[in-house]
Amino acid sequence: MDLAMEEAIAAAARDEVPVGAVVSRGSTVIAQAGNRTRELNDPTAHAEMLAIRQACRRLGTERLTGCDLTVTLEPCPMCAGAISFARIGRLYFATDDPKGGAVENGVRYFSSPTCHHAPEIYSGIQQSRSTALLQGFFAAKR
Amino acid sequence: MDLAMEEAIAAAARDEVPVGAVVSRGSTVIAQAGNRTRELNDPTAHAEMLAIRQACRRLGTERLTGCDLTVTLEPCPMCAGAISFARIGRLYFATDDPKGGAVENGVRYFSSPTCHHAPEIYSGIQQSRSTALLQGFFAAKR
Repeated sequence: MDLAMEEAIAAAARDEVPVGAVVSRGSTVIAQAGNRTRELNDPTAHAEMLAIRQACRRLGTERLTGCDLTVTLEPCPMCAGAISFARIGRLYFATDDPKGGAVENGVRYFSSPTCHHAPEIYSGIQQSRSTALLQGFFAAKR
Repeated sequence: MDLAMEEAIAAAARDEVPVGAVVSRGSTVIAQAGNRTRELNDPTAHAEMLAIRQACRRLGTERLTGCDLTVTLEPCPMCAGAISFARIGRLYFATDDPKGGAVENGVRYFSSPTCHHAPEIYSGIQQSRSTALLQGFFAAKR
């Protein structure tokens, strides 16, 4: 989660919503990314999506079986879909997102009968740190 | 929808699940793509995602306000999320997908309180043609 937080802090420095994500297998980091939707003009360029795509490129596969994803914010439906399709084993996230999340909030995709692979879910890790980062970012915007 | 069908047929010829998508504004095609998850080793490379990303690149924006998306299959949660984030105006799709769809099936994302932009939805367009294409593809696989 420390590495995901570093990616989130780097995203904020680029004036992007501060979210960071890491794909790992055991103790090996396979990919890491921060949110780049503005920089890339790409609404799909959430940290999780970039990290999953990077990991798939590196491993030469579209299935990240045995890999875990660590992210500083509860994934949205788009990212939850990608996590499922990529067969991520464990999902670790920091802050929950009542407005846009799709794991413990919103559509709770991983509990839906149309979700065909759900990761194990661990939430609340370094929650206050991620929340402070997000709140600080949005407060500075106002 | 004819152009989206052509993209779906081209996807099948590449041994990809036959789904095609087109982003248009009025009568102008901005982007078109077929599914390339296997070719690109990218579980996020659904036709809709590729078409949306291509359209954003072409227009130099992360919001496709005033643009419509036409796709041969009901979008999944990942693509529905991207459609919402991209501010697609109208969504036209052919076949519904009870197993994996997220518009009229599954989590029905656009009807969720955590969906902050929903397109107008038009379904069933050239449905039998897309269904036949998908069924033929999967029958040949078995």
